[in-house]
Amino acid sequence: MKEACGLLGIYTTGNEISISTTIYFGLLALQHRGQESAGIAVSNGRSIKCHKGLGLVSEVFSELELKKLVGSIGMGHVRYSTTGDNTVENSQPLVFGYSKGQMSIAHNGNLVNTSALRKELQEHGFIFQTTTDSEIIAATISREISCSADLIEALQKAMMKLEGSFSLIIMTEDKLIAVRDPHGFRPLCLGRLDNCIVVASETAALDTLGANYEREISPGEILVIDNNGVHNHMVAKETRRSLCVFEFVYFARPDSTINGITVYSSRLRAGINLAREKPVDADLVVGVPDSGTVAAMGFSQESGIPLAMGLIKNRYIGRTFIQPMQRMRKMGVRLKLNVLKEVVRGKRLVLVDDSIVRGTTSAQIVRILKDAGASQVHVRVASPPVTHSCYYGIDTSSKKELIAANHELKTITDFLGADTLEYLSLEGLIEAVGTNREELCAACFDGKYPTKVTDTVGKRLFEK
Amino acid sequence: MKEACGLLGIYTTGNEISISTTIYFGLLALQHRGQESAGIAVSNGRSIKCHKGLGLVSEVFSELELKKLVGSIGMGHVRYSTTGDNTVENSQPLVFGYSKGQMSIAHNGNLVNTSALRKELQEHGFIFQTTTDSEIIAATISREISCSADLIEALQKAMMKLEGSFSLIIMTEDKLIAVRDPHGFRPLCLGRLDNCIVVASETAALDTLGANYEREISPGEILVIDNNGVHNHMVAKETRRSLCVFEFVYFARPDSTINGITVYSSRLRAGINLAREKPVDADLVVGVPDSGTVAAMGFSQESGIPLAMGLIKNRYIGRTFIQPMQRMRKMGVRLKLNVLKEVVRGKRLVLVDDSIVRGTTSAQIVRILKDAGASQVHVRVASPPVTHSCYYGIDTSSKKELIAANHELKTITDFLGADTLEYLSLEGLIEAVGTNREELCAACFDGKYPTKVTDTVGKRLFEK
Amino acid sequence: MKEACGLLGIYTTGNEISISTTIYFGLLALQHRGQESAGIAVSNGRSIKCHKGLGLVSEVFSELELKKLVGSIGMGHVRYSTTGDNTVENSQPLVFGYSKGQMSIAHNGNLVNTSALRKELQEHGFIFQTTTDSEIIAATISREISCSADLIEALQKAMMKLEGSFSLIIMTEDKLIAVRDPHGFRPLCLGRLDNCIVVASETAALDTLGANYEREISPGEILVIDNNGVHNHMVAKETRRSLCVFEFVYFARPDSTINGITVYSSRLRAGINLAREKPVDADLVVGVPDSGTVAAMGFSQESGIPLAMGLIKNRYIGRTFIQPMQRMRKMGVRLKLNVLKEVVRGKRLVLVDDSIVRGTTSAQIVRILKDAGASQVHVRVASPPVTHSCYYGIDTSSKKELIAANHELKTITDFLGADTLEYLSLEGLIEAVGTNREELCAACFDGKYPTKVTDTVGKRLFEK
Amino acid sequence: MKEACGLLGIYTTGNEISISTTIYFGLLALQHRGQESAGIAVSNGRSIKCHKGLGLVSEVFSELELKKLVGSIGMGHVRYSTTGDNTVENSQPLVFGYSKGQMSIAHNGNLVNTSALRKELQEHGFIFQTTTDSEIIAATISREISCSADLIEALQKAMMKLEGSFSLIIMTEDKLIAVRDPHGFRPLCLGRLDNCIVVASETAALDTLGANYEREISPGEILVIDNNGVHNHMVAKETRRSLCVFEFVYFARPDSTINGITVYSSRLRAGINLAREKPVDADLVVGVPDSGTVAAMGFSQESGIPLAMGLIKNRYIGRTFIQPMQRMRKMGVRLKLNVLKEVVRGKRLVLVDDSIVRGTTSAQIVRILKDAGASQVHVRVASPPVTHSCYYGIDTSSKKELIAANHELKTITDFLGADTLEYLSLEGLIEAVGTNREELCAACFDGKYPTKVTDTVGKRLFEK
Repeated sequence: MKEACGLLGIYTTGNEISISTTIYFGLLALQHRGQESAGIAVSNGRSIKCHKGLGLVSEVFSELELKKLVGSIGMGHVRYSTTGDNTVENSQPLVFGYSKGQMSIAHNGNLVNTSALRKELQEHGFIFQTTTDSEIIAATISREISCSADLIEALQKAMMKLEGSFSLIIMTEDKLIAVRDPHGFRPLCLGRLDNCIVVASETAALDTLGANYEREISPGEILVIDNNGVHNHMVAKETRRSLCVFEFVYFARPDSTINGITVYSSRLRAGINLAREKPVDADLVVGVPDSGTVAAMGFSQESGIPLAMGLIKNRYIGRTFIQPMQRMRKMGVRLKLNVLKEVVRGKRLVLVDDSIVRGTTSAQIVRILKDAGASQVHVRVASPPVTHSCYYGIDTSSKKELIAANHELKTITDFLGADTLEYLSLEGLIEAVGTNREELCAACFDGKYPTKVTDTVGKRLFEK
Repeated sequence: MKEACGLLGIYTTGNEISISTTIYFGLLALQHRGQESAGIAVSNGRSIKCHKGLGLVSEVFSELELKKLVGSIGMGHVRYSTTGDNTVENSQPLVFGYSKGQMSIAHNGNLVNTSALRKELQEHGFIFQTTTDSEIIAATISREISCSADLIEALQKAMMKLEGSFSLIIMTEDKLIAVRDPHGFRPLCLGRLDNCIVVASETAALDTLGANYEREISPGEILVIDNNGVHNHMVAKETRRSLCVFEFVYFARPDSTINGITVYSSRLRAGINLAREKPVDADLVVGVPDSGTVAAMGFSQESGIPLAMGLIKNRYIGRTFIQPMQRMRKMGVRLKLNVLKEVVRGKRLVLVDDSIVRGTTSAQIVRILKDAGASQVHVRVASPPVTHSCYYGIDTSSKKELIAANHELKTITDFLGADTLEYLSLEGLIEAVGTNREELCAACFDGKYPTKVTDTVGKRLFEK
Repeated sequence: MKEACGLLGIYTTGNEISISTTIYFGLLALQHRGQESAGIAVSNGRSIKCHKGLGLVSEVFSELELKKLVGSIGMGHVRYSTTGDNTVENSQPLVFGYSKGQMSIAHNGNLVNTSALRKELQEHGFIFQTTTDSEIIAATISREISCSADLIEALQKAMMKLEGSFSLIIMTEDKLIAVRDPHGFRPLCLGRLDNCIVVASETAALDTLGANYEREISPGEILVIDNNGVHNHMVAKETRRSLCVFEFVYFARPDSTINGITVYSSRLRAGINLAREKPVDADLVVGVPDSGTVAAMGFSQESGIPLAMGLIKNRYIGRTFIQPMQRMRKMGVRLKLNVLKEVVRGKRLVLVDDSIVRGTTSAQIVRILKDAGASQVHVRVASPPVTHSCYYGIDTSSKKELIAANHELKTITDFLGADTLEYLSLEGLIEAVGTNREELCAACFDGKYPTKVTDTVGKRLFEK
Repeated sequence: MKEACGLLGIYTTGNEISISTTIYFGLLALQHRGQESAGIAVSNGRSIKCHKGLGLVSEVFSELELKKLVGSIGMGHVRYSTTGDNTVENSQPLVFGYSKGQMSIAHNGNLVNTSALRKELQEHGFIFQTTTDSEIIAATISREISCSADLIEALQKAMMKLEGSFSLIIMTEDKLIAVRDPHGFRPLCLGRLDNCIVVASETAALDTLGANYEREISPGEILVIDNNGVHNHMVAKETRRSLCVFEFVYFARPDSTINGITVYSSRLRAGINLAREKPVDADLVVGVPDSGTVAAMGFSQESGIPLAMGLIKNRYIGRTFIQPMQRMRKMGVRLKLNVLKEVVRGKRLVLVDDSIVRGTTSAQIVRILKDAGASQVHVRVASPPVTHSCYYGIDTSSKKELIAANHELKTITDFLGADTLEYLSLEGLIEAVGTNREELCAACFDGKYPTKVTDTVGKRLFEK
């Protein structure tokens, strides 16, 4: 189950009657990380209540539902929308009873030893009601707790068993706990808002709530917030950091800061580096909205080629589930993007996008630009060729669908119908991100997976 | 968690494409056993699919949802509607993965050792996502399977651990299994429809589907239906039969047959016995619709006092969740029942109801009859005083709310505002049911519980 | 458009903040008159607000919707559910602006000169957004108002133009007006509840609200309630009264009183008269639930043949829109009614129903009784053969579908599979209703239509 | 009632079974013109069917609803979402019966003599069920048809009576008619797609469907499409063209072309002109997303000051109806826009927006930029001060709320908290639009209304 989700947790020492509304607005700021389902759980100190459902945050929650969720600790989750297994059972947070009371858990990431963990638990009689990693994590934690007097020790032991990526928010009746896997694949940060402590997948959610950013949750850290204050514990596992580079390339909001780097700046810098590495003589720079917009600005700035809005995104077509009729299907991308003919006609374009996964959408975009009269289309990609599947929660395609995993540059250029095609080098991307290669996971670009991978099935397509 | 639910299971050896529609109509026939939630699960031989939700069967299922549920084995469940814990998580069937594959389970009844079972399982690390007995049963079965090579043996062992009432339908990818607890508290019967085998809580569901009744599932029986045919196994537990007498008094449909006795006939006979035991000189017999209607017919028949329809039920008011405004609240029962003034004016009435639990509704009915001009109201109850709580799945009140558990006949008569009040004797009821006392559970009337009772909390009110 | 609907209007001189909730409960009591759509309009003295929708009253209105409808005058409507044209546009009340302000109108009945009226109005440029008579009535009234200084005069003139049956509730910003056509086809009555004046289609709605019945609105009466009090005006049209006899036979609630006769009593009396006119030697009297239940009681009482519940209605199957699969369709009525085999086996039955329209359901009932072992089934119908279509708002079938309009008694008996079939005479029915023949409309039985009929199309089937 | 809506009509001579799906996708491309309600009507040559509802196009229509709308002629409408009167009754198209059959009408614009027209029609007895201009237009047309043998003549006469802005799509059983008011306030264009003729509010809808743009519907033109082909007729009214300049400033999609000018180009040009007219020494140009983005590109290009993304729009917060809690309300715009602190910190910014109406949002944006560390914020507005209300369908504020109508530049600058504030001149804007002043309506900027204005009430706020 690929999941690139958004997490938010709030602990308040004051009299926070609107905690669910605060979480609601925080989830709206994280909605880009998942549109499949949304959920909020709150604890009033004695018990946990939860509401969740399929759809956007604004569809799942009404004023009435928010009013029913009263408490001083709370957490929320948004889930990535893909085909299959989009069921309410799989939505999060997962709330459950265990030997010491109630617990609620939400997960961003993807385990790579799910099958082995599930098998072992089932052999002890455990049953599983969902197909999510979160339930596996919950059962693993509960099992450790049943053998261990101490919650922290149990969490540490559980974390040693989980392989893969997992940023977690966990809530008991009186504690909020943030956990980040020892590799630190997925982001997770800490902030403060008046008397509240806020944990979120991205800093943009802190900004939206008016909270001040404090720091990132460290890889391997267990942060516990309760009425004894904020305490942190580390997992002893010897690992290297492996922050997902694709968060910078595509996934995170441009206004979020990860590892001290604003995503916007890294994308702008990637565009600049791209212009330096793979220059081209052209009349206009056009970004693919919205993913390539910032890199296109960087490319234009560095190359001196004017930036132009050559493609307009139809913002309302994204949420429809209606299939276009046969004749319209041929046009495909035309429903989502419209060309500004007057702008591109007779022009030599640099078309900048953030990445190419399967290449089908890019090919359609090149065609509609040429149909509109562009004399040349030079595709420039602000990241290296995607040659390997991701197993850590970004839903790239299976390897056989990754165009760059299976074809030469020349073949891809022809497939796209582009005049030229060039990618940013991995070095160029890493320079833009401003972090050492050894502290990043860039396995999708170079196949250097930071962990063993035992589960390689169920990879779904990454839709932009 | 009190649950008096309805179960239906179908196994077909033919090419049954409409299995979910058949289950749907079967559940409509069992809807009186539970209006809280409904669910259907089907297996196509390889995997199990399920749809469930809160509300009536007709609200939970659309044609589209039914079409998605394709298979040759299937089961459905309706759940009793009361306040509290009416959540989609608690709706059934419960579908889960275990060590051998997938399983689906639905339960009618109530365990009396839930707390102990849950505690033991949690101490082994098990987590619980619902507050239903069904999840406890599922985990218990799964745990036994993990220790046992044989499914039947595992089921037998699990059944030895469960105390209380449980009629179960269980489905694996290729089997339909019907289980009835060794006491046989709740009904469960077997029928055939062309090439299908049908298991249902009540025979009325078989009739509705056009299926022929074959026999009851015996107390302590495990009936397995798969492509090897129909096989049954018994649990070795030494117990006495304890069929719930309240199924005859109130719960089951009058057109169902339990233990060879048509419920209608037992109610008619109860009315006859009531007239014999507690005669009264009056002008008209009026039944409280719908629960007292049949007993009133019997009372009239035996006493020779004409039957009259003195009360009309407002059929549409039942499903509203709108609270009447203050002034209307005073009238209470008037929204649900209307008096035929012309019929009752100046008349001495025998008011027949099936049972009195808390007495509040009965008091209101007596008052509106007197307000309408009835000169006398003689309340006759077609069952004995309810003096003890039920722990086996009929949701009677907690003992302190049971009017007959706490008050003398004289006090109750005054509370009701009745001229006289008399109950049918337990002997009279048992004679009407046509079964030996020792094969019935009549604990609500005489406190002779057939099992130890360790869980006595969470009893909710029984609303008519 | 056939419409047999329910109307309710309330005018309060006090500070009635819950007027919409009161109307809501009143409509629940009238729900049997229409399950297609429901609506409530209220006036706060300055403007009219309305909410309406398809479905049952309890489905259309939430607490939130009711709270938004604040005012001191209000009215509600339920509409009869049939196939076709069940659109929200056609739901009522109809609210509109006219030359003097706002008006709201709700209608029970059916005009017989709709086409002519619509044609004339359209020739003056009027447009029609619905297919209801109500819009025709609204436009006719508005047109008269534009020619007339006086509202009453305009209403009187409009009423002279309308042919057919129409009980109306009309509301302006500050008035509640009740209108009954000069024939008085459909019932409409007046009551008082504290400081409120209530107008309703049936007295049962008054009872439910705790209002006291005052009198019927007279045929040809216009009753105006405003801050000048209650005033009534008559239409000068020379007509004979023509109260619909079918309200007694089937449509109205048994606990309602029309023209001083409780519907229950008339049905009981019809059963008695039927037993006298068409006696038969049999073992048991069985009523078709719910329509034949009361007449069956009368038949039993008069004949001395014991009453038995031989058929049980499945109360939950009525609201489903799911079609049974092919095999189940064959069983048809079995989904709706179940036979008590034990009761009917080997017995000679008198099967009593209120009326036979097309005969198909009756034939199925006879068959399932015989299949269950009834030795004889003698059908006794508590009204005469339906030989003519109704044009006044009861949705009987078109003449070619009326079995008694096209076939001899012998043929019908054979079609039903009955041993004997007999109907109550018209005289017997009229005696039961206790009104002179010349003050009733019994056109469906004898073809003596009280008005000219120019619109004879669009007749839909009457479904029980 | 202010309405700036979107229209789409399709006439096909072929066998177009998917006409409603085509309209659906066309409406998605026009969704920016109205998010309040959506509707589609189709004619199969004999009768018109319609489905409409509140919400986005994707919310109103399911696959099932689209499949029910079968025909060869069709039309759709999206309505602008503001507070008040957002009722399903007011949604369009309006379908009605008139003397010759059925008609369907949809309207973009705003009449300025609504009251007079309604009053006159009501004096003839007409009733009005909505508060839309569309119903007034429908009644006016129907009235003319009732006096006129010829449809075209009737339409021409009706158009002479309507004052204000109205682009209309009208459908009868067998015709599609496009009408544009003699001033041509609102856009309306014609295209072809295979065997279909398409009429749409904006060319972007044609592009999305893959249709070729043919020409604009001329001011005063009545275009009739039926099986006799395409014919056009003109209204004789002597008027000057008055194309709304605000369509270029804000309302239309940047990829639409109006009067031969691509909206994107006019906005880019407005930014260029703004940089020339009102230059400023600064470090970065930041556009307010999305309305100021293109003008900011032009300003950057002309001034040589680098463009930067200083503000990020939270795309998912727009559709929520949940009110933020008190503490969050203080932050206001922060929920919708986030500042890229790293980008703006210590920088002198040129903040470019398309227009300033009330100024409250702009003031909040200036504040969050300063809070984030911007050293200077120079506001540059790519249109002149809005000093007059619009009565032709753009929902600007009432005059007393227009900040520039009531305050000096200095006061507004202070209110915004800006270092400097400058507007583009009207000449500069008109040059950018590339049309003569006398062919544009720029009344919101200079008060030169092209028509008499008799209705000045009901102006609602224009929300960006």
